[in-house]
Amino acid sequence: MNHAVVMAGGSGTRFWPESRAKRAKQFLNLTGHGTMIAETIRRFAPLVPPGNIWVVAGEKDREHLSPAALGIPPENLLLEPEGRNTAPAVALAAAAIRLKDPEAVVVASPADHAIADLKEFRAILRRALRLTRESGCFVTLGIPPTHPATGYGYIERGQPYGDPKTGAFRVRRFAEKPDAATARRFLRSGRFDWNSGLFLFRLPEFRQRLRAHLPDVHAAFESAFRQAGKPGFQAAIRKAYRAIPSVSVDHGLLEHEPEILVVPAAVGWNDIGTWRSLHEFLGHGESGNVLFGNVIATDCRNVLVRSDRGVVAVLGMEDVVVVRSGDAVLVCPRNRSEEVKGIVDQVKGKYPELA
Amino acid sequence: MNHAVVMAGGSGTRFWPESRAKRAKQFLNLTGHGTMIAETIRRFAPLVPPGNIWVVAGEKDREHLSPAALGIPPENLLLEPEGRNTAPAVALAAAAIRLKDPEAVVVASPADHAIADLKEFRAILRRALRLTRESGCFVTLGIPPTHPATGYGYIERGQPYGDPKTGAFRVRRFAEKPDAATARRFLRSGRFDWNSGLFLFRLPEFRQRLRAHLPDVHAAFESAFRQAGKPGFQAAIRKAYRAIPSVSVDHGLLEHEPEILVVPAAVGWNDIGTWRSLHEFLGHGESGNVLFGNVIATDCRNVLVRSDRGVVAVLGMEDVVVVRSGDAVLVCPRNRSEEVKGIVDQVKGKYPELA
Repeated sequence: MNHAVVMAGGSGTRFWPESRAKRAKQFLNLTGHGTMIAETIRRFAPLVPPGNIWVVAGEKDREHLSPAALGIPPENLLLEPEGRNTAPAVALAAAAIRLKDPEAVVVASPADHAIADLKEFRAILRRALRLTRESGCFVTLGIPPTHPATGYGYIERGQPYGDPKTGAFRVRRFAEKPDAATARRFLRSGRFDWNSGLFLFRLPEFRQRLRAHLPDVHAAFESAFRQAGKPGFQAAIRKAYRAIPSVSVDHGLLEHEPEILVVPAAVGWNDIGTWRSLHEFLGHGESGNVLFGNVIATDCRNVLVRSDRGVVAVLGMEDVVVVRSGDAVLVCPRNRSEEVKGIVDQVKGKYPELA
Repeated sequence: MNHAVVMAGGSGTRFWPESRAKRAKQFLNLTGHGTMIAETIRRFAPLVPPGNIWVVAGEKDREHLSPAALGIPPENLLLEPEGRNTAPAVALAAAAIRLKDPEAVVVASPADHAIADLKEFRAILRRALRLTRESGCFVTLGIPPTHPATGYGYIERGQPYGDPKTGAFRVRRFAEKPDAATARRFLRSGRFDWNSGLFLFRLPEFRQRLRAHLPDVHAAFESAFRQAGKPGFQAAIRKAYRAIPSVSVDHGLLEHEPEILVVPAAVGWNDIGTWRSLHEFLGHGESGNVLFGNVIATDCRNVLVRSDRGVVAVLGMEDVVVVRSGDAVLVCPRNRSEEVKGIVDQVKGKYPELA
């Protein structure tokens, strides 16, 4: 059967003041359609039964994680005592899935990306799930680049793979985030996709690779899962994490694979990395304004204004982001929203309870 | 003896969100040196004993008015049940002063203006008090204009009056707020000052003019003050106000005077009508930034940022006003802060508790 693993362990400050040390981006309702983690789960719903959707998140985020609200069984929420990058997160879910469905086909996905074309995404995912089941390969979803981004990793396509209807290619190589010139070259070549962080695998192959390439991780979870379903289980998980290195799936597993497949997916993917990219993703009418909550915007253009309480009144502004969340307010030009991290550092120093 | 009447009955919305329907400008600490009403009182302190300083304010503002905090005796706080413009406000104070000091020399002043050069103000006020005592005339302070303002009334100077050291002139005429062309003409002529709203008089002459020109007001207070010091006094004041017309000192009294004097006062006077004028009044260093409260401003120029709680972080902005007060936030360009009134109308409609 199909399973989905939603990796919700990330943290980040780029959406301050909505994101905070204790409220990461995946728990924000940025688009107005629910939290990003809830949207991610909904995205898989028609192809993966709710009982087969697994969430791996941090213990620190427990307060934001209600299995009932997310529509998953309580035991499908897996809590990491601390983040160890993606390989342990997926391995943790894989160990849990194995107890239920040793032959599972699994799609793993970050919890903090947005996808505009849900219909196309589901069509492509359906093909990718079948491809994974039939090939036994790791399959990644690549995003056809729309501009020479320097903030993403890239995947170079090689030869087409199998039935052309599947739209799959062999992966020639993974490239780290490039510099600007390299990114332009990648874009011009037409052979590169962005690495979406979405990938698929068959459980037996995943376990076999884990045992081969990350034996510490494999052994730690083998041991911990002997307690599965028992009262000491979470304590066993905590113990396992003390022995586990921090390592990504890309580096820990994929770089040893002789054959990885990529399916280009033009699905309006956006990692929504900054307030500006949220503004761009959401689209907007003639005014270019995107307003959430109790907001009064008079004679404004291309503004993103959000307020979770009270009222935020914006008059005569253009190309700015104004966000009020709790007791914190941010005002900056749209095109400088990537500098919010620096603001958060200052807030940490002066008003730690608001960082 | 010298007495001062501080007219604090005004209301206004131009400093929203700090000013609200229930918190007028004179009760705001705009400059960082205390509320405007407290600053106004302090301004008179060396020339007028605290027991001779009278505050006329609205009953609606009672919560903002602590005689102890203002440094005046409780009986010097006079509450109008509703505003009736300046003539009744001053007449009310005059009636109270008469019980204590029938030969008083009185300076009357709005409570919501700022004066930068306190030393010069006091020197001029000292001369103006003496001039009033000796001449028996109404004396106004005129502000030498620095630009062709259309938001103020003007006073045209006639011939010099008396001892040149006093710096006084006869008033040729009062002019209402002019249009732009007229204002430029006024400025060019060199004969016009702004009407500061500050004026002086001797109590006997004031009472005589009041009886002659505003007999209703005179009679109403004559009757009410028979209850002075008794339990029914405030009720008597309320009754008086029901019979009293709304009328300014300028129209109700001064326009009947054959001889009024004006003393030009280059004292850095500013009526601080908008957030922009506050920014200009406060002056600022090289950055042009004026910051109050918990504010983080990074790479900003010419911004006015104020916060009464939490934190307001402003990154990379120029020439804007950002004010957070209670549950309301305002963001606008500095040069559009006079349009805040329109915002307040919208707030009234949608979030009346925040207007």
